[in-house]
Amino acid sequence: MLPLHSKFFIMNIPKSSFPRIVIIGGGFAGIALAKKLSKQEVQVVLLDKHNYHTFQPLLYQVSTGGLEPDSIAYPIRKVLQDFPNFYFRLAKVSEIDTEKNTIQSNIGALKFDYLVVASGSKTNYFGNKSIEDNSMEMKTIPQSLNLRSLILENFEEALLTSDLNRRNALMSFVIVGAGPTGVELAGALAEIKKGILPKDYPDLDTRLAQINLVQSGDTILKTMSPNASKKAEDFLEQLGVNVWKNVRVTSYDGTTVTTDSDLTFESETVVWAAGVKGAAIKGLDAEQFVSRGNRILVNEFNQVKGIDNIFAIGDVAQMESESVPHGHPMMAQPAIQQGKLLGDNILKLLDKKPMTPFVYKDRGSMATIGRNKAVVDLPNFKFQGVFAWFVWMFVHLFSLVGFRNRTVVFINWVYNYIRFDREARLIIRPYKKKLKS
Amino acid sequence: MLPLHSKFFIMNIPKSSFPRIVIIGGGFAGIALAKKLSKQEVQVVLLDKHNYHTFQPLLYQVSTGGLEPDSIAYPIRKVLQDFPNFYFRLAKVSEIDTEKNTIQSNIGALKFDYLVVASGSKTNYFGNKSIEDNSMEMKTIPQSLNLRSLILENFEEALLTSDLNRRNALMSFVIVGAGPTGVELAGALAEIKKGILPKDYPDLDTRLAQINLVQSGDTILKTMSPNASKKAEDFLEQLGVNVWKNVRVTSYDGTTVTTDSDLTFESETVVWAAGVKGAAIKGLDAEQFVSRGNRILVNEFNQVKGIDNIFAIGDVAQMESESVPHGHPMMAQPAIQQGKLLGDNILKLLDKKPMTPFVYKDRGSMATIGRNKAVVDLPNFKFQGVFAWFVWMFVHLFSLVGFRNRTVVFINWVYNYIRFDREARLIIRPYKKKLKS
Repeated sequence: MLPLHSKFFIMNIPKSSFPRIVIIGGGFAGIALAKKLSKQEVQVVLLDKHNYHTFQPLLYQVSTGGLEPDSIAYPIRKVLQDFPNFYFRLAKVSEIDTEKNTIQSNIGALKFDYLVVASGSKTNYFGNKSIEDNSMEMKTIPQSLNLRSLILENFEEALLTSDLNRRNALMSFVIVGAGPTGVELAGALAEIKKGILPKDYPDLDTRLAQINLVQSGDTILKTMSPNASKKAEDFLEQLGVNVWKNVRVTSYDGTTVTTDSDLTFESETVVWAAGVKGAAIKGLDAEQFVSRGNRILVNEFNQVKGIDNIFAIGDVAQMESESVPHGHPMMAQPAIQQGKLLGDNILKLLDKKPMTPFVYKDRGSMATIGRNKAVVDLPNFKFQGVFAWFVWMFVHLFSLVGFRNRTVVFINWVYNYIRFDREARLIIRPYKKKLKS
Repeated sequence: MLPLHSKFFIMNIPKSSFPRIVIIGGGFAGIALAKKLSKQEVQVVLLDKHNYHTFQPLLYQVSTGGLEPDSIAYPIRKVLQDFPNFYFRLAKVSEIDTEKNTIQSNIGALKFDYLVVASGSKTNYFGNKSIEDNSMEMKTIPQSLNLRSLILENFEEALLTSDLNRRNALMSFVIVGAGPTGVELAGALAEIKKGILPKDYPDLDTRLAQINLVQSGDTILKTMSPNASKKAEDFLEQLGVNVWKNVRVTSYDGTTVTTDSDLTFESETVVWAAGVKGAAIKGLDAEQFVSRGNRILVNEFNQVKGIDNIFAIGDVAQMESESVPHGHPMMAQPAIQQGKLLGDNILKLLDKKPMTPFVYKDRGSMATIGRNKAVVDLPNFKFQGVFAWFVWMFVHLFSLVGFRNRTVVFINWVYNYIRFDREARLIIRPYKKKLKS
């Protein structure tokens, strides 16, 4: 780590007569903001630890072999190609100095005139070390690929053991948390169990593979309408998923999942989808800056409280109001809307005009459980089933960045639908070390 | 490692009244053989260290971001899905006991009635440790992805240094070996340099990126016709590749490439494509079994010399004759043809009928250098340029396994052609440790 200001020119960003806006994070919020600032009289530096934007809502399809990772990722440099005065740097920001208007990263320090923290969220294990050490998460493409490898490796290993308990544990899944991620993953695994496993592993009784979805509350998809929640549960049961409600997972040692009831599960594949927290960065993560969920507290202009030139948007930002005492949901829509508005507001700020407060337009939410099985809550229209499934696909397809990605995802979905198949079931980077040998 | 015969049932392959044929390797040769043996009165166990078949001729497009890895890989289990009495095991074979008719692997031992070694080839560094330690190879999908990451990481790093020599080294490539792999990779890099880099890195003088193709002999693509060789060299020069002939690379310390002449190169990305050797396995790798290139010596029936029930096919097999004193070329075509014939021959052997000797049908060879630039040598027709390029694409597209893969590759190629683009320029698994932090 280089000391702050160790080199004037450390990231090789040229001096500019325009104000420098540094954006941390190329997710939905950061990219929406960057697009708004294109071709304006500003210098923009976008930093991300990956050189690509990830379309997170489809990560579960990468984990289950339905899509190749490359088709839900998009090079950030390509997004910025036509924007003058834009600089991308592959960097992990470690600290923000709010006094000196400087950020610190693994590639050096950088001064800013305005800073926008759009660093997103990360998995929240609520301090449970055993679960953190032994379970899988699915927030990034590498994590999703690890899960894909682990699932496939476990089935290969299940073939080799004569210990029935161990074989069942290798073939069984526990997904903790029944939000959209947990529900969609459970549904996709159920379809694989039904459509792929019996053909791929004729010498294994794959009927014994158990898919358990465990939820501490008494309802799944709790942010959606009661109808959607009920129907999603029906769909999961039709697909053979065991839905466990009012059960809280308390530990996981790599083999046995214990809960707050008598219930335990033997499973080698546990996915933790039961919590996220804001990815607040050092310098803005002290008690006065963040909520309990580690999200940076912002005012209605996404301004960090008490600091005029630093903003936070998207999952990492918590904008509290009477209607949303814990901030807006940590989803793509608020992130995109905040990114767009902040683009306009920064330009207004530079023009010394008053900024516009953020008002969230809830465009609804949706989840897919499986083939022809989805639930959609629009503001004025809630529906479930085949039509919902088509709407889900259409919306996700057109939300993807890039024509090539949309086309490749479309081809995959048509193929998977017609052939009941998932062809990306490849162990490219083994996750378990023992199989690496 | 378990001792031989430690457990009767170690790989959980059931006993069968049919003879057991064990195939090591799911490459072109192994898969062609497996298909021939489907629905016959044999038990087949196919072993591979990956759970997918790799279409190696297109690996260079994975390294250069033109194709996603998943579209040139195909699940081996899917190939075998409809074949009764077929067993796939994810295993790395470490030893063959030719006396006891047993193989030894990381998942245990297995007895065979017939054994077919189709383990392919690996990179041959000819004992040069400095090159082996510091250069990249491109024989597998993980290796190709490592190269993709390294290239992109080096460009990101080039942005950060003010040391001009280092920046040039980060932007420069040395490809050693001007066979099809080296030529195709050099051409693809030249197109990226021209079409992508200036847009992706506007703040970097990417004209300084040098692509050097170094060849110890006096001709490139030496297995092809003189016309193809000459034209390929013209194409490379048009694309701005520096072609160095009669230069032998002698060492590479990670920064400086030295040669047997005064010529040296400063480069952080050196790809070794100057040699392969057979991947002979312990037990069949002793002097009496293998050629100088570590290929297993076989007779005209692909039988290992002196052993009736063990065969070798594809790259790992060296079938010497007057016309081919060093065996057939280590390419897809001889592998596929030997796999197919051996399938028939094993069935003949079981029927106690005489086997048919292998005769190689040379269907020609081809290489693509870039957009509209390819060279094709058919037995009776040799041509270069746009038409050759279309033929190259057509042949490769239809040689891919699987409808989905063909469609996705086709979409990518059309997109890349129209847009002069390569969208899979993603650093999903960083290769350089320093950027992992």
